[in-house]
Amino acid sequence: MTSYLTGLIGAGIGPSLSPALHEREADRHGLRLLYRTLDIDVLGVAPAAVGELVRAARTLGFDGLNITHPCKQLVIEHLDELAPEAATLGAVNTVVFRDGRAIGHNTDVTGFAQSFARGLPGAATGSVVQLGAGGAGAAVAHALLTLGTDRLTVVDTDPSRAGALADSLTAHFGTGRAAAAPPRDLPALLPDADGLVHATPTGMAAHPGLPLPASLLGPHLWVAEVVYRPLETELLRAADAAGCRTLDGGGMAVFQAVDAFRLFTGREPHVEDMLRDFADLAAAPVR
Amino acid sequence: MTSYLTGLIGAGIGPSLSPALHEREADRHGLRLLYRTLDIDVLGVAPAAVGELVRAARTLGFDGLNITHPCKQLVIEHLDELAPEAATLGAVNTVVFRDGRAIGHNTDVTGFAQSFARGLPGAATGSVVQLGAGGAGAAVAHALLTLGTDRLTVVDTDPSRAGALADSLTAHFGTGRAAAAPPRDLPALLPDADGLVHATPTGMAAHPGLPLPASLLGPHLWVAEVVYRPLETELLRAADAAGCRTLDGGGMAVFQAVDAFRLFTGREPHVEDMLRDFADLAAAPVR
Repeated sequence: MTSYLTGLIGAGIGPSLSPALHEREADRHGLRLLYRTLDIDVLGVAPAAVGELVRAARTLGFDGLNITHPCKQLVIEHLDELAPEAATLGAVNTVVFRDGRAIGHNTDVTGFAQSFARGLPGAATGSVVQLGAGGAGAAVAHALLTLGTDRLTVVDTDPSRAGALADSLTAHFGTGRAAAAPPRDLPALLPDADGLVHATPTGMAAHPGLPLPASLLGPHLWVAEVVYRPLETELLRAADAAGCRTLDGGGMAVFQAVDAFRLFTGREPHVEDMLRDFADLAAAPVR
Repeated sequence: MTSYLTGLIGAGIGPSLSPALHEREADRHGLRLLYRTLDIDVLGVAPAAVGELVRAARTLGFDGLNITHPCKQLVIEHLDELAPEAATLGAVNTVVFRDGRAIGHNTDVTGFAQSFARGLPGAATGSVVQLGAGGAGAAVAHALLTLGTDRLTVVDTDPSRAGALADSLTAHFGTGRAAAAPPRDLPALLPDADGLVHATPTGMAAHPGLPLPASLLGPHLWVAEVVYRPLETELLRAADAAGCRTLDGGGMAVFQAVDAFRLFTGREPHVEDMLRDFADLAAAPVR
């Protein structure tokens, strides 16, 4: 019987839902699949040890790995090949070992794109404001411009980070489609925007609060959240109260797993079942 | 859900039945268990690389490993602790990772003992002749003396190997219980023996033939075989024709897996089911 050995490398990943998502989906296919967390904090190694971990995993017959913070960039130099979206983004969240080669993919980009198409069908994407220019922000920005957003404004409390992401987006998608702005410009930007994407840690259990004044939200805006623990963030509650269409962070989390599962196993995932599993798992208290 | 990640390190282990034996038993317990082969020939590493493989497996969260030829001795220096039968024998076929420690066991010894008790109940063990003083021979000899054999004569074409095993058995079990002899002594030894154990490769697919003249066999002898591929060796056929009680090598193969499974998972294995699985698997053509 074919079996699959997979895992996740990152920091603080003990509560990750990925093991359950992948293993339950494998069970539906009748596949023997193990998904293990390799937490660099637990192992007591530095983020740069991702290279050694990937090498060991390849030697020991792992079929694939997911990679998360803070290793998504660091892993690249240890791979043999990058899929286009991972190369463009400069970040890898999925590694597939095949025929002795390690190939890097990024299913955060495709994950957000699918979640957006499913959760906000028909949403206008002419002008979008994005909060957060970190790793998740970069993936979401690439997804939005790939989906056809005409103009994306990246807002970050760190102006150099916002500028760097805007520059990289411009280099890839062409002049005029991406710009950077400081948070103080939000009151000027949001009235003319079609949508707002939130990609900072604010709203996670460890970082409660709103990432911008609720007064800036209004029914002309859709609001998409990247945070998914909790699934209903303060921002989504405020957006809902303001009459916005909303998209929670769960869809991106599920679809990145959907795409990773397909890469690991070659099987077509049962998307609705994985969404249902995620809803069950996310509703359970964090271990 | 608790999952178990296990495997086998050795050379030429592609056709091993251990993955199927362990995974099928895990399924009966409702456990998610993966058993992978880590073949040093396929990996292109020397037997001494077992240390590096064990270290990598521990880092990546393996729960346990089986170890086979040619790594059963080499692995010892890389472990934190040895169970008594492994320490006595100087060979490890099972490693359990627990609380950050790697503990070596030898379930070949207990495996043969259980197979013998089950397959040849009531067999006299006063005087036993054993052919073969290699790794399997050492494990079987320890099992026989532990089971109460009064006198074991170890016969090997390499007199120094036979002598070394006899010396080591004497050191552990006391003077007079073990001796070495050359093959030319077999006609003198066998008429007075209760049983004959065969622990050389003769009779395996790659080494067809009989390990001793069939004329030396007679109904006063039981004959126990360690070779299990094929399950019915030329020796067992000759012994059967000579009126001997016989024990094939399958029982030892299954019971070493039974004991390893218990060590890996803490669950009590379904012995009869594992014996039945082994019979099915061994009857299938070698891949």
